[in-house]
Amino acid sequence: MDVSLLAGIAIPMQTFRHARRVEFADTDLAGFVHFSHYLRYMEETEYAFLRSLGLDVILEDEKGKLGFPRFESHCRYESPARYGHVVDVTLTVSHNDGKRITYDFDLRVGERAVAKGRLVVVCCRFPLDREPYAIPIPDRVLEAIPLTV
Amino acid sequence: MDVSLLAGIAIPMQTFRHARRVEFADTDLAGFVHFSHYLRYMEETEYAFLRSLGLDVILEDEKGKLGFPRFESHCRYESPARYGHVVDVTLTVSHNDGKRITYDFDLRVGERAVAKGRLVVVCCRFPLDREPYAIPIPDRVLEAIPLTV
Amino acid sequence: MDVSLLAGIAIPMQTFRHARRVEFADTDLAGFVHFSHYLRYMEETEYAFLRSLGLDVILEDEKGKLGFPRFESHCRYESPARYGHVVDVTLTVSHNDGKRITYDFDLRVGERAVAKGRLVVVCCRFPLDREPYAIPIPDRVLEAIPLTV
Amino acid sequence: MDVSLLAGIAIPMQTFRHARRVEFADTDLAGFVHFSHYLRYMEETEYAFLRSLGLDVILEDEKGKLGFPRFESHCRYESPARYGHVVDVTLTVSHNDGKRITYDFDLRVGERAVAKGRLVVVCCRFPLDREPYAIPIPDRVLEAIPLTV
Repeated sequence: MDVSLLAGIAIPMQTFRHARRVEFADTDLAGFVHFSHYLRYMEETEYAFLRSLGLDVILEDEKGKLGFPRFESHCRYESPARYGHVVDVTLTVSHNDGKRITYDFDLRVGERAVAKGRLVVVCCRFPLDREPYAIPIPDRVLEAIPLTV
Repeated sequence: MDVSLLAGIAIPMQTFRHARRVEFADTDLAGFVHFSHYLRYMEETEYAFLRSLGLDVILEDEKGKLGFPRFESHCRYESPARYGHVVDVTLTVSHNDGKRITYDFDLRVGERAVAKGRLVVVCCRFPLDREPYAIPIPDRVLEAIPLTV
Repeated sequence: MDVSLLAGIAIPMQTFRHARRVEFADTDLAGFVHFSHYLRYMEETEYAFLRSLGLDVILEDEKGKLGFPRFESHCRYESPARYGHVVDVTLTVSHNDGKRITYDFDLRVGERAVAKGRLVVVCCRFPLDREPYAIPIPDRVLEAIPLTV
Repeated sequence: MDVSLLAGIAIPMQTFRHARRVEFADTDLAGFVHFSHYLRYMEETEYAFLRSLGLDVILEDEKGKLGFPRFESHCRYESPARYGHVVDVTLTVSHNDGKRITYDFDLRVGERAVAKGRLVVVCCRFPLDREPYAIPIPDRVLEAIPLTV
Protein backbone atom coordinates (compact mmCIF):
# COMPACT_ATOMS: atom_id res chain seq x y z
CA MET A 1 0.00 0.00 0.00
CA ASP A 2 2.85 2.29 0.87
CA VAL A 3 5.87 2.33 -1.36
CA SER A 4 9.06 4.06 -0.45
CA LEU A 5 10.00 6.18 -3.42
CA LEU A 6 12.95 8.05 -2.05
CA ALA A 7 15.83 7.84 -4.45
CA GLY A 8 18.02 10.78 -3.57
CA ILE A 9 21.25 10.35 -5.42
CA ALA A 10 24.10 11.76 -3.40
CA ILE A 11 21.64 13.23 -0.93
CA PRO A 12 22.29 11.50 2.36
CA MET A 13 19.16 10.68 4.30
CA GLN A 14 18.91 11.46 7.97
CA THR A 15 18.89 8.28 10.05
CA PHE A 16 18.82 7.36 13.72
CA ARG A 17 19.09 4.10 15.64
CA HIS A 18 17.39 3.08 18.84
CA ALA A 19 17.40 -0.25 20.70
CA ARG A 20 14.26 -1.38 22.53
CA ARG A 21 14.08 -4.42 24.77
CA VAL A 22 10.89 -6.47 24.40
CA GLU A 23 9.14 -6.35 27.76
CA PHE A 24 6.95 -9.15 29.10
CA ALA A 25 3.81 -7.01 28.93
CA ASP A 26 4.46 -6.40 25.20
CA THR A 27 3.73 -10.03 24.38
CA ASP A 28 0.39 -11.76 23.86
CA LEU A 29 -0.79 -15.33 24.23
CA ALA A 30 0.67 -16.30 20.85
CA GLY A 31 4.06 -15.81 22.53
CA PHE A 32 5.18 -12.87 20.39
CA VAL A 33 5.10 -9.08 20.61
CA HIS A 34 1.54 -7.88 20.02
CA PHE A 35 1.42 -6.19 16.62
CA SER A 36 0.24 -2.85 18.01
CA HIS A 37 3.44 -2.55 20.06
CA TYR A 38 5.63 -2.22 16.98
CA LEU A 39 3.97 1.16 16.45
CA ARG A 40 5.03 2.11 19.95
CA TYR A 41 8.59 1.00 19.26
CA MET A 42 8.50 3.19 16.15
CA GLU A 43 7.12 6.17 18.06
CA GLU A 44 9.63 5.74 20.87
CA THR A 45 12.40 5.80 18.27
CA GLU A 46 10.94 8.94 16.67
CA TYR A 47 10.88 10.68 20.06
CA ALA A 48 14.42 9.55 20.91
CA PHE A 49 15.39 11.01 17.52
CA LEU A 50 13.73 14.32 18.43
CA ARG A 51 15.50 14.34 21.79
CA SER A 52 18.83 13.68 20.04
CA LEU A 53 18.19 16.88 18.06
CA GLY A 54 17.33 18.94 21.14
CA LEU A 55 13.64 18.94 20.21
CA ASP A 56 10.71 17.81 22.29
CA VAL A 57 7.46 16.05 21.47
CA ILE A 58 5.48 19.10 22.52
CA LEU A 59 7.10 22.40 21.56
CA GLU A 60 6.08 25.83 22.73
CA ASP A 61 6.38 29.20 21.07
CA GLU A 62 4.82 32.58 21.72
CA LYS A 63 1.50 31.40 20.24
CA GLY A 64 1.17 28.28 22.40
CA LYS A 65 1.82 24.57 22.00
CA LEU A 66 2.59 22.65 18.84
CA GLY A 67 3.37 19.03 18.09
CA PHE A 68 3.23 16.28 15.50
CA PRO A 69 0.04 14.20 15.58
CA ARG A 70 0.08 11.06 13.50
CA PHE A 71 -1.53 11.28 10.06
CA GLU A 72 -0.80 7.75 8.89
CA SER A 73 0.84 4.57 10.13
CA HIS A 74 1.87 1.48 8.27
CA CYS A 75 3.63 -1.70 9.30
CA ARG A 76 4.58 -4.92 7.54
CA TYR A 77 5.29 -7.77 9.93
CA GLU A 78 8.12 -10.00 8.70
CA SER A 79 8.99 -12.30 11.59
CA PRO A 80 8.08 -12.40 15.26
CA ALA A 81 10.02 -10.78 18.10
CA ARG A 82 9.78 -12.41 21.52
CA TYR A 83 10.31 -11.60 25.16
CA GLY A 84 14.03 -11.24 25.82
CA HIS A 85 14.83 -9.95 22.35
CA VAL A 86 16.28 -6.51 21.84
CA VAL A 87 14.77 -4.86 18.76
CA ASP A 88 17.09 -2.54 16.84
CA VAL A 89 15.03 0.17 15.21
CA THR A 90 16.49 2.31 12.42
CA LEU A 91 14.58 5.50 11.59
CA THR A 92 15.02 7.27 8.26
CA VAL A 93 13.55 10.67 7.45
CA SER A 94 12.29 9.80 4.00
CA HIS A 95 10.21 12.92 3.37
CA ASN A 96 9.76 16.40 4.84
CA ASP A 97 7.74 18.82 2.71
CA GLY A 98 7.44 21.55 5.35
CA LYS A 99 4.06 20.33 6.56
CA ARG A 100 4.41 16.59 6.99
CA ILE A 101 7.36 14.40 7.91
CA THR A 102 7.53 10.77 6.79
CA TYR A 103 9.63 8.44 8.90
CA ASP A 104 10.49 4.96 7.67
CA PHE A 105 11.47 2.30 10.17
CA ASP A 106 13.41 -0.91 9.91
CA LEU A 107 13.08 -3.23 12.92
CA ARG A 108 15.49 -6.10 13.42
CA VAL A 109 16.55 -8.62 16.02
CA GLY A 110 20.21 -9.03 15.20
CA GLU A 111 20.29 -9.50 11.43
CA ARG A 112 16.77 -10.87 11.22
CA ALA A 113 14.12 -8.50 9.78
CA VAL A 114 11.17 -8.22 12.18
CA ALA A 115 9.10 -5.41 10.67
CA LYS A 116 9.17 -2.45 8.33
CA GLY A 117 7.05 0.54 9.21
CA ARG A 118 6.14 4.09 8.39
CA LEU A 119 4.75 7.03 10.30
CA VAL A 120 3.56 10.20 8.60
CA VAL A 121 3.20 13.06 11.07
CA VAL A 122 1.72 16.53 10.60
CA CYS A 123 2.84 19.68 12.35
CA CYS A 124 -0.15 21.00 14.32
CA ARG A 125 -0.93 23.72 16.76
CA PHE A 126 -2.88 22.63 19.86
CA PRO A 127 -5.22 25.42 20.91
CA LEU A 128 -6.74 25.14 24.37
CA ASP A 129 -10.24 25.69 23.09
CA ARG A 130 -10.56 23.67 19.90
CA GLU A 131 -9.16 20.75 17.89
CA PRO A 132 -5.55 20.76 16.65
CA TYR A 133 -4.97 22.30 13.20
CA ALA A 134 -2.08 22.00 10.73
CA ILE A 135 0.60 24.70 10.46
CA PRO A 136 3.91 24.97 8.59
CA ILE A 137 6.79 23.26 10.37
CA PRO A 138 8.61 26.02 12.28
CA ASP A 139 12.18 27.02 11.43
CA ARG A 140 13.78 25.60 14.52
CA VAL A 141 12.47 22.16 13.58
CA LEU A 142 13.55 22.59 9.95
CA GLU A 143 17.07 23.44 11.15
CA ALA A 144 17.19 20.03 12.80
CA ILE A 145 15.15 18.06 10.23
CA PRO A 146 15.77 19.70 6.84
CA LEU A 147 13.29 19.71 3.99
CA THR A 148 13.83 16.84 1.56
CA VAL A 149 13.94 17.42 -2.19
CA MET B 1 -1.30 -5.25 53.82
CA ASP B 2 -4.82 -3.98 53.21
CA VAL B 3 -7.55 -4.94 55.57
CA SER B 4 -11.17 -4.34 54.84
CA LEU B 5 -12.68 -2.76 57.93
CA LEU B 6 -16.21 -2.13 56.79
CA ALA B 7 -18.64 -3.20 59.44
CA GLY B 8 -21.80 -1.24 58.69
CA ILE B 9 -24.66 -3.05 60.41
CA ALA B 10 -27.85 -2.50 58.50
CA ILE B 11 -26.20 0.13 56.32
CA PRO B 12 -26.37 -1.11 52.77
CA MET B 13 -23.18 -0.55 50.80
CA GLN B 14 -23.28 0.99 47.35
CA THR B 15 -22.38 -1.55 44.69
CA PHE B 16 -22.16 -1.65 40.91
CA ARG B 17 -21.51 -4.39 38.37
CA HIS B 18 -19.70 -4.21 35.09
CA ALA B 19 -18.78 -6.95 32.60
CA ARG B 20 -15.52 -6.73 30.69
CA ARG B 21 -14.52 -9.07 27.88
CA VAL B 22 -10.85 -10.12 27.92
CA GLU B 23 -9.31 -8.82 24.72
CA PHE B 24 -6.46 -10.55 22.91
CA ALA B 25 -4.06 -7.66 23.60
CA ASP B 26 -4.76 -8.01 27.35
CA THR B 27 -2.95 -11.36 27.46
CA ASP B 28 0.75 -12.09 27.73
CA LEU B 29 2.92 -15.02 26.68
CA ALA B 30 1.90 -17.02 29.76
CA GLY B 31 -1.53 -17.23 28.11
CA PHE B 32 -3.42 -15.23 30.75
CA VAL B 33 -4.45 -11.62 31.29
CA HIS B 34 -1.37 -9.58 32.23
CA PHE B 35 -1.66 -8.65 35.90
CA SER B 36 -1.54 -4.89 35.24
CA HIS B 37 -4.75 -5.14 33.19
CA TYR B 38 -6.85 -6.09 36.20
CA LEU B 39 -6.22 -2.56 37.47
CA ARG B 40 -7.63 -1.29 34.18
CA TYR B 41 -10.69 -3.49 34.53
CA MET B 42 -11.15 -2.05 38.01
CA GLU B 43 -10.75 1.53 36.77
CA GLU B 44 -13.13 0.95 33.86
CA THR B 45 -15.71 -0.32 36.34
CA GLU B 46 -15.18 2.72 38.57
CA TYR B 47 -15.75 5.04 35.61
CA ALA B 48 -18.81 3.12 34.45
CA PHE B 49 -20.08 3.52 38.03
CA LEU B 50 -19.48 7.28 37.86
CA ARG B 51 -21.29 7.46 34.52
CA SER B 52 -24.21 5.52 36.00
CA LEU B 53 -24.49 8.30 38.60
CA GLY B 54 -24.37 11.08 36.03
CA LEU B 55 -20.82 11.99 37.05
CA ASP B 56 -17.75 12.21 34.86
CA VAL B 57 -14.10 11.35 35.42
CA ILE B 58 -13.14 14.99 35.07
CA LEU B 59 -15.62 17.41 36.62
CA GLU B 60 -15.70 21.16 36.18
CA ASP B 61 -16.91 23.88 38.49
CA GLU B 62 -16.43 27.65 38.57
CA LYS B 63 -12.88 27.20 39.89
CA GLY B 64 -11.72 24.82 37.18
CA LYS B 65 -11.23 21.08 36.80
CA LEU B 66 -11.31 18.42 39.47
CA GLY B 67 -10.99 14.68 39.46
CA PHE B 68 -9.96 11.61 41.43
CA PRO B 69 -6.30 10.63 41.04
CA ARG B 70 -5.35 7.26 42.45
CA PHE B 71 -3.78 7.25 45.90
CA GLU B 72 -3.39 3.51 46.31
CA SER B 73 -4.07 0.29 44.41
CA HIS B 74 -4.08 -3.27 45.58
CA CYS B 75 -4.85 -6.55 43.88
CA ARG B 76 -4.77 -10.18 44.94
CA TYR B 77 -4.69 -12.59 42.02
CA GLU B 78 -6.69 -15.74 42.67
CA SER B 79 -6.94 -17.58 39.37
CA PRO B 80 -6.14 -16.66 35.78
CA ALA B 81 -8.55 -15.15 33.26
CA ARG B 82 -7.97 -15.94 29.61
CA TYR B 83 -8.84 -14.60 26.19
CA GLY B 84 -12.49 -15.23 25.50
CA HIS B 85 -13.54 -14.93 29.13
CA VAL B 86 -15.92 -12.25 30.28
CA VAL B 87 -14.86 -10.88 33.67
CA ASP B 88 -17.70 -9.78 35.94
CA VAL B 89 -16.48 -6.95 38.13
CA THR B 90 -18.42 -5.94 41.24
CA LEU B 91 -17.50 -2.59 42.76
CA THR B 92 -18.35 -1.72 46.36
CA VAL B 93 -17.92 1.74 47.86
CA SER B 94 -16.34 0.60 51.11
CA HIS B 95 -15.25 3.99 52.42
CA ASN B 96 -15.91 7.67 51.71
CA ASP B 97 -14.62 10.09 54.33
CA GLY B 98 -15.21 13.27 52.32
CA LYS B 99 -11.66 13.36 50.99
CA ARG B 100 -10.92 9.85 49.79
CA ILE B 101 -13.11 7.12 48.37
CA THR B 102 -12.16 3.46 48.73
CA TYR B 103 -13.56 1.08 46.12
CA ASP B 104 -13.31 -2.67 46.61
CA PHE B 105 -13.56 -4.93 43.60
CA ASP B 106 -14.44 -8.56 43.16
CA LEU B 107 -13.55 -10.02 39.74
CA ARG B 108 -15.03 -13.32 38.61
CA VAL B 109 -15.37 -15.47 35.53
CA GLY B 110 -18.72 -17.09 36.14
CA GLU B 111 -18.55 -18.30 39.76
CA ARG B 112 -14.76 -18.58 39.78
CA ALA B 113 -12.89 -15.89 41.74
CA VAL B 114 -10.24 -14.27 39.54
CA ALA B 115 -9.02 -11.35 41.65
CA LYS B 116 -9.90 -9.07 44.52
CA GLY B 117 -8.78 -5.47 44.31
CA ARG B 118 -8.94 -2.05 45.86
CA LEU B 119 -8.53 1.48 44.62
CA VAL B 120 -8.27 4.46 46.96
CA VAL B 121 -8.84 7.74 45.12
CA VAL B 122 -8.44 11.30 46.32
CA CYS B 123 -10.49 14.27 45.21
CA CYS B 124 -8.08 16.77 43.65
CA ARG B 125 -8.20 20.05 41.84
CA PHE B 126 -6.12 20.21 38.64
CA PRO B 127 -4.73 23.72 38.24
CA LEU B 128 -3.30 24.61 34.85
CA ASP B 129 -0.06 25.90 36.31
CA ARG B 130 0.94 23.44 39.03
CA GLU B 131 0.51 19.92 40.37
CA PRO B 132 -2.92 18.61 41.49
CA TYR B 133 -3.82 19.18 45.15
CA ALA B 134 -6.41 17.56 47.43
CA ILE B 135 -9.74 19.24 48.14
CA PRO B 136 -12.96 18.14 49.95
CA ILE B 137 -15.23 16.05 47.75
CA PRO B 138 -17.85 18.48 46.39
CA ASP B 139 -21.51 18.19 47.32
CA ARG B 140 -22.73 17.04 43.93
CA VAL B 141 -20.44 14.00 44.22
CA LEU B 142 -21.49 13.35 47.82
CA GLU B 143 -25.12 13.37 46.72
CA ALA B 144 -24.30 10.47 44.41
CA ILE B 145 -21.69 8.72 46.60
CA PRO B 146 -22.68 9.39 50.23
CA LEU B 147 -20.22 9.54 53.10
CA THR B 148 -19.80 6.24 54.90
CA VAL B 149 -19.95 5.98 58.67
CA MET C 1 -24.80 -3.96 19.90
CA ASP C 2 -23.10 -5.75 17.05
CA VAL C 3 -25.20 -5.76 13.92
CA SER C 4 -24.14 -7.63 10.85
CA LEU C 5 -25.09 -5.87 7.65
CA LEU C 6 -24.85 -7.26 4.16
CA ALA C 7 -24.88 -4.49 1.62
CA GLY C 8 -24.16 -4.07 -2.07
CA ILE C 9 -26.06 -5.43 -5.02
CA ALA C 10 -23.90 -7.21 -7.54
CA ILE C 11 -21.10 -8.41 -5.30
CA PRO C 12 -22.14 -8.08 -1.71
CA MET C 13 -19.21 -7.53 0.62
CA GLN C 14 -19.22 -9.07 4.03
CA THR C 15 -19.39 -6.41 6.74
CA PHE C 16 -19.67 -6.30 10.49
CA ARG C 17 -20.14 -3.53 13.03
CA HIS C 18 -18.74 -3.24 16.53
CA ALA C 19 -18.95 -0.42 19.08
CA ARG C 20 -15.99 0.27 21.38
CA ARG C 21 -16.02 2.74 24.23
CA VAL C 22 -12.84 4.78 24.60
CA GLU C 23 -11.36 3.93 27.98
CA PHE C 24 -9.33 6.36 30.09
CA ALA C 25 -6.16 4.28 29.73
CA ASP C 26 -6.51 4.49 25.91
CA THR C 27 -5.72 8.21 25.96
CA ASP C 28 -2.37 9.97 26.12
CA LEU C 29 -1.26 13.37 27.37
CA ALA C 30 -2.44 15.05 24.17
CA GLY C 31 -5.95 14.24 25.39
CA PHE C 32 -6.88 11.85 22.57
CA VAL C 33 -6.77 8.10 21.98
CA HIS C 34 -3.16 7.03 21.46
CA PHE C 35 -2.73 6.12 17.79
CA SER C 36 -1.64 2.54 18.53
CA HIS C 37 -5.00 1.84 20.16
CA TYR C 38 -6.92 2.20 16.92
CA LEU C 39 -5.17 -0.98 15.81
CA ARG C 40 -6.54 -2.67 18.91
CA TYR C 41 -10.02 -1.40 18.17
CA MET C 42 -9.66 -2.87 14.67
CA GLU C 43 -8.41 -6.20 16.01
CA GLU C 44 -11.16 -6.37 18.62
CA THR C 45 -13.69 -5.84 15.84
CA GLU C 46 -12.08 -8.57 13.73
CA TYR C 47 -12.30 -11.00 16.65
CA ALA C 48 -15.90 -10.05 17.39
CA PHE C 49 -16.56 -10.73 13.69
CA LEU C 50 -14.96 -14.17 14.00
CA ARG C 51 -17.02 -14.91 17.12
CA SER C 52 -20.19 -13.86 15.27
CA LEU C 53 -19.36 -16.55 12.69
CA GLY C 54 -18.74 -19.23 15.31
CA LEU C 55 -14.98 -19.06 14.73
CA ASP C 56 -12.26 -18.46 17.26
CA VAL C 57 -8.96 -16.59 17.12
CA ILE C 58 -7.05 -19.81 17.65
CA LEU C 59 -8.55 -22.80 15.85
CA GLU C 60 -7.61 -26.43 16.31
CA ASP C 61 -7.74 -29.35 13.93
CA GLU C 62 -6.21 -32.82 13.95
CA LYS C 63 -2.79 -31.37 13.06
CA GLY C 64 -2.68 -28.80 15.87
CA LYS C 65 -3.31 -25.08 16.24
CA LEU C 66 -3.83 -22.50 13.54
CA GLY C 67 -4.57 -18.82 13.53
CA PHE C 68 -4.24 -15.55 11.64
CA PRO C 69 -1.09 -13.57 12.45
CA ARG C 70 -0.98 -10.05 11.12
CA PHE C 71 0.94 -9.53 7.88
CA GLU C 72 0.29 -5.83 7.45
CA SER C 73 -1.47 -2.96 9.19
CA HIS C 74 -2.37 0.47 7.96
CA CYS C 75 -4.23 3.35 9.51
CA ARG C 76 -5.06 6.89 8.42
CA TYR C 77 -6.02 9.16 11.30
CA GLU C 78 -8.75 11.62 10.36
CA SER C 79 -9.89 13.25 13.58
CA PRO C 80 -9.31 12.53 17.26
CA ALA C 81 -11.45 10.35 19.49
CA ARG C 82 -11.54 11.21 23.18
CA TYR C 83 -12.36 9.62 26.49
CA GLY C 84 -16.11 9.17 26.74
CA HIS C 85 -16.61 8.67 23.02
CA VAL C 86 -17.99 5.44 21.64
CA VAL C 87 -16.21 4.48 18.42
CA ASP C 88 -18.31 2.67 15.86
CA VAL C 89 -16.09 0.35 13.86
CA THR C 90 -17.29 -1.12 10.55
CA LEU C 91 -15.29 -4.06 9.22
CA THR C 92 -15.42 -5.05 5.55
CA VAL C 93 -13.85 -8.21 4.15
CA SER C 94 -12.30 -6.61 1.09
CA HIS C 95 -10.16 -9.53 -0.03
CA ASN C 96 -9.82 -13.25 0.65
CA ASP C 97 -7.60 -15.17 -1.75
CA GLY C 98 -7.50 -18.40 0.23
CA LYS C 99 -4.25 -17.53 1.97
CA ARG C 100 -4.68 -13.97 3.18
CA ILE C 101 -7.70 -12.00 4.30
CA THR C 102 -7.79 -8.21 4.01
CA TYR C 103 -10.10 -6.39 6.39
CA ASP C 104 -10.87 -2.71 5.88
CA PHE C 105 -12.09 -0.66 8.81
CA ASP C 106 -14.05 2.55 9.09
CA LEU C 107 -13.99 4.14 12.55
CA ARG C 108 -16.47 6.87 13.44
CA VAL C 109 -17.76 8.77 16.44
CA GLY C 110 -21.33 9.40 15.41
CA GLU C 111 -21.11 10.66 11.83
CA ARG C 112 -17.59 12.02 12.24
CA ALA C 113 -14.80 9.99 10.55
CA VAL C 114 -12.07 9.15 13.08
CA ALA C 115 -9.86 6.74 11.17
CA LYS C 116 -9.69 4.36 8.26
CA GLY C 117 -7.62 1.24 8.64
CA ARG C 118 -6.60 -2.07 7.15
CA LEU C 119 -5.36 -5.37 8.48
CA VAL C 120 -4.01 -8.10 6.24
CA VAL C 121 -3.84 -11.44 8.05
CA VAL C 122 -2.30 -14.73 6.95
CA CYS C 123 -3.54 -18.18 7.86
CA CYS C 124 -0.73 -19.92 9.74
CA ARG C 125 -0.13 -23.12 11.58
CA PHE C 126 1.52 -22.76 15.01
CA PRO C 127 3.78 -25.76 15.61
CA LEU C 128 5.01 -26.25 19.18
CA ASP C 129 8.61 -26.56 18.12
CA ARG C 130 9.19 -23.88 15.48
CA GLU C 131 7.94 -20.57 14.06
CA PRO C 132 4.45 -20.28 12.54
CA TYR C 133 4.19 -21.02 8.79
CA ALA C 134 1.53 -20.14 6.20
CA ILE C 135 -1.09 -22.68 5.13
CA PRO C 136 -4.23 -22.51 2.94
CA ILE C 137 -7.26 -21.19 4.80
CA PRO C 138 -9.23 -24.29 5.89
CA ASP C 139 -12.69 -25.03 4.53
CA ARG C 140 -14.58 -24.33 7.73
CA VAL C 141 -13.22 -20.78 7.67
CA LEU C 142 -13.98 -20.38 3.96
CA GLU C 143 -17.56 -21.43 4.62
CA ALA C 144 -17.87 -18.46 6.98
CA ILE C 145 -15.64 -16.00 5.09
CA PRO C 146 -15.96 -16.85 1.38
CA LEU C 147 -13.24 -16.25 -1.19
CA THR C 148 -13.61 -12.90 -2.93
CA VAL C 149 -13.55 -12.66 -6.71
CA MET D 1 22.65 1.75 33.89
CA ASP D 2 21.63 -0.97 36.31
CA VAL D 3 23.72 -0.97 39.43
CA SER D 4 23.34 -3.67 42.05
CA LEU D 5 23.84 -2.37 45.56
CA LEU D 6 24.16 -4.48 48.67
CA ALA D 7 23.47 -2.43 51.74
CA GLY D 8 22.89 -3.01 55.42
CA ILE D 9 25.24 -4.47 57.97
CA ALA D 10 23.69 -7.19 60.06
CA ILE D 11 21.17 -8.58 57.57
CA PRO D 12 22.00 -7.25 54.16
CA MET D 13 18.94 -7.07 51.93
CA GLN D 14 19.29 -7.80 48.27
CA THR D 15 18.59 -4.71 46.19
CA PHE D 16 18.73 -3.77 42.51
CA ARG D 17 18.27 -0.54 40.59
CA HIS D 18 16.76 0.02 37.18
CA ALA D 19 16.04 3.22 35.27
CA ARG D 20 12.94 3.45 33.07
CA ARG D 21 12.15 6.34 30.76
CA VAL D 22 8.49 7.39 30.71
CA GLU D 23 7.24 6.83 27.18
CA PHE D 24 4.54 8.93 25.54
CA ALA D 25 2.13 5.99 25.37
CA ASP D 26 2.51 5.52 29.16
CA THR D 27 0.67 8.78 29.83
CA ASP D 28 -3.06 9.48 29.93
CA LEU D 29 -5.16 12.58 29.36
CA ALA D 30 -4.42 13.86 32.86
CA GLY D 31 -0.87 14.38 31.59
CA PHE D 32 0.80 11.85 33.92
CA VAL D 33 1.82 8.20 33.74
CA HIS D 34 -1.31 6.03 33.94
CA PHE D 35 -1.32 4.32 37.34
CA SER D 36 -1.35 0.80 35.86
CA HIS D 37 2.02 1.46 34.22
CA TYR D 38 3.84 1.71 37.53
CA LEU D 39 3.14 -1.99 37.94
CA ARG D 40 4.84 -2.55 34.60
CA TYR D 41 7.84 -0.49 35.69
CA MET D 42 8.02 -2.66 38.80
CA GLU D 43 7.76 -5.88 36.78
CA GLU D 44 10.38 -4.71 34.28
CA THR D 45 12.72 -4.03 37.19
CA GLU D 46 12.04 -7.47 38.67
CA TYR D 47 12.87 -9.10 35.34
CA ALA D 48 16.02 -7.00 34.90
CA PHE D 49 16.97 -8.18 38.40
CA LEU D 50 16.43 -11.81 37.37
CA ARG D 51 18.53 -11.28 34.24
CA SER D 52 21.29 -9.74 36.36
CA LEU D 53 21.36 -13.02 38.32
CA GLY D 54 21.48 -15.18 35.20
CA LEU D 55 17.87 -16.24 35.68
CA ASP D 56 15.00 -15.96 33.23
CA VAL D 57 11.31 -15.21 33.63
CA ILE D 58 10.43 -18.68 32.43
CA LEU D 59 12.78 -21.40 33.64
CA GLU D 60 12.93 -24.95 32.43
CA ASP D 61 13.98 -28.13 34.17
CA GLU D 62 13.54 -31.83 33.39
CA LYS D 63 9.87 -31.65 34.47
CA GLY D 64 8.93 -28.71 32.23
CA LYS D 65 8.43 -24.98 32.64
CA LEU D 66 8.25 -22.96 35.80
CA GLY D 67 7.88 -19.29 36.58
CA PHE D 68 6.66 -16.71 39.08
CA PRO D 69 3.04 -15.63 38.59
CA ARG D 70 1.92 -12.64 40.59
CA PHE D 71 0.04 -13.37 43.81
CA GLU D 72 -0.41 -9.80 44.99
CA SER D 73 0.39 -6.26 43.91
CA HIS D 74 0.26 -3.03 45.82
CA CYS D 75 1.16 0.53 44.92
CA ARG D 76 0.93 3.85 46.74
CA TYR D 77 1.10 6.83 44.41
CA GLU D 78 3.00 9.75 45.90
CA SER D 79 3.53 12.26 43.11
CA PRO D 80 3.06 12.14 39.34
CA ALA D 81 5.69 11.18 36.79
CA ARG D 82 5.43 12.75 33.36
CA TYR D 83 6.59 12.16 29.81
CA GLY D 84 10.29 12.88 29.60
CA HIS D 85 11.03 11.82 33.15
CA VAL D 86 13.33 8.93 33.90
CA VAL D 87 12.00 6.87 36.79
CA ASP D 88 14.63 5.28 39.02
CA VAL D 89 13.26 2.06 40.44
CA THR D 90 14.92 0.39 43.42
CA LEU D 91 13.91 -3.22 44.09
CA THR D 92 14.45 -4.84 47.49
CA VAL D 93 13.91 -8.53 48.17
CA SER D 94 12.04 -8.10 51.43
CA HIS D 95 10.88 -11.69 51.89
CA ASN D 96 11.63 -15.13 50.45
CA ASP D 97 10.15 -18.05 52.37
CA GLY D 98 10.95 -20.72 49.77
CA LYS D 99 7.52 -20.49 48.15
CA ARG D 100 6.85 -16.81 47.69
CA ILE D 101 9.13 -13.85 47.07
CA THR D 102 8.12 -10.35 48.11
CA TYR D 103 9.72 -7.49 46.23
CA ASP D 104 9.39 -3.92 47.48
CA PHE D 105 9.87 -1.06 45.07
CA ASP D 106 10.77 2.57 45.50
CA LEU D 107 10.17 4.73 42.41
CA ARG D 108 11.70 8.18 42.16
CA VAL D 109 12.30 10.94 39.66
CA GLY D 110 15.56 12.36 40.90
CA GLU D 111 15.07 12.75 44.65
CA ARG D 112 11.29 13.08 44.41
CA ALA D 113 9.28 10.05 45.57
CA VAL D 114 6.83 8.96 42.85
CA ALA D 115 5.48 5.67 44.16
CA LYS D 116 6.11 2.80 46.53
CA GLY D 117 5.05 -0.64 45.46
CA ARG D 118 5.10 -4.32 46.24
CA LEU D 119 4.83 -7.49 44.23
CA VAL D 120 4.41 -10.90 45.84
CA VAL D 121 5.18 -13.71 43.40
CA VAL D 122 4.71 -17.46 43.76
CA CYS D 123 6.88 -20.12 42.21
CA CYS D 124 4.64 -22.21 39.94
CA ARG D 125 4.95 -25.02 37.48
CA PHE D 126 3.17 -24.45 34.15
CA PRO D 127 1.85 -27.78 32.88
CA LEU D 128 0.74 -27.91 29.26
CA ASP D 129 -2.59 -29.46 30.13
CA ARG D 130 -3.85 -27.66 33.22
CA GLU D 131 -3.59 -24.49 35.33
CA PRO D 132 -0.28 -23.48 36.98
CA TYR D 133 0.29 -24.85 40.49
CA ALA D 134 2.66 -23.78 43.30
CA ILE D 135 5.93 -25.61 43.94
CA PRO D 136 8.95 -24.95 46.21
CA ILE D 137 11.40 -22.48 44.73
CA PRO D 138 14.15 -24.57 43.12
CA ASP D 139 17.72 -24.51 44.41
CA ARG D 140 19.21 -22.67 41.48
CA VAL D 141 16.88 -19.75 42.19
CA LEU D 142 17.60 -19.90 45.94
CA GLU D 143 21.32 -19.71 45.18
CA ALA D 144 20.68 -16.38 43.48
CA ILE D 145 17.87 -15.11 45.74
CA PRO D 146 18.53 -16.56 49.23
CA LEU D 147 15.84 -17.29 51.77
CA THR D 148 15.26 -14.42 54.18
CA VAL D 149 15.24 -14.94 57.92
